[in-house]
Amino acid sequence: MAKRKRHKNAGCPVARPLDVIGDCWSMLIIRDAFDGKRRFGEFQKSLGLAKNVLSARLRNLVEHDVLETVPASDGSTYQEYVLTEKGRGLFPVLVALRQWGESFFFEPHERHVLLVDRKRRMPIRRLEIRAQDGRLLGPADTMVTAA
Amino acid sequence: MAKRKRHKNAGCPVARPLDVIGDCWSMLIIRDAFDGKRRFGEFQKSLGLAKNVLSARLRNLVEHDVLETVPASDGSTYQEYVLTEKGRGLFPVLVALRQWGESFFFEPHERHVLLVDRKRRMPIRRLEIRAQDGRLLGPADTMVTAA
Repeated sequence: MAKRKRHKNAGCPVARPLDVIGDCWSMLIIRDAFDGKRRFGEFQKSLGLAKNVLSARLRNLVEHDVLETVPASDGSTYQEYVLTEKGRGLFPVLVALRQWGESFFFEPHERHVLLVDRKRRMPIRRLEIRAQDGRLLGPADTMVTAA
Repeated sequence: MAKRKRHKNAGCPVARPLDVIGDCWSMLIIRDAFDGKRRFGEFQKSLGLAKNVLSARLRNLVEHDVLETVPASDGSTYQEYVLTEKGRGLFPVLVALRQWGESFFFEPHERHVLLVDRKRRMPIRRLEIRAQDGRLLGPADTMVTAA
């Protein structure tokens, strides 16, 4: 299977992360973790995923330091999964994906959930790509160079 | 296979796009398309991917209106693949993924390619999540609500 090829030695910062999150279930587990879900059963209920598949995905995310396991917050014997610093670093990826989804995967009349600012309950701003001096950049205004 | 489940009717804007790009090869094809690659052979050389796999991924991206085929720019009989408006809408997703890769997948001394502003040749700014009134937001400052 081509999917088994790994990108961990690629010199490209787009390629390397895809070994960890280039799978739709992994991104949805991460979405749920940002949304406050912590327990195996909560992820399973949200995603409707077979236990063995969910278990493998969670293990992969823990191995790659995106999630970590902690004792249950209620003192029970369950373990919980929480985002690490590296995992929380995925917030802009998730927001970018969400905004792309909002723009191109829903009909104008179709309702969808919204990511809002907790304080004012207003949808967050659209992401913008900017130069160091603040200019707004489109794809054609950028290029990839050797470091 | 769990991967076959589709999210196209999910009410969540994070889930729907993953049917299209929740696969590491698709994101790398899209990266290459932003980088100016247009021909089957160029993608193949860049990704080192089996022809049948690349062909299936390209077809999927065309079917989902992320890429479109156009006659070759040099008048030859080849067809070329270019990003549609929906495909160009993935620019922030790719930038977010790139910045996460730069932060967590390279050693401090390790060199990687850089996305720079064409005009000044300086790396672009880090993405920021902001409220409508401009406040910088972290994950804990946001929440998902029904529309």
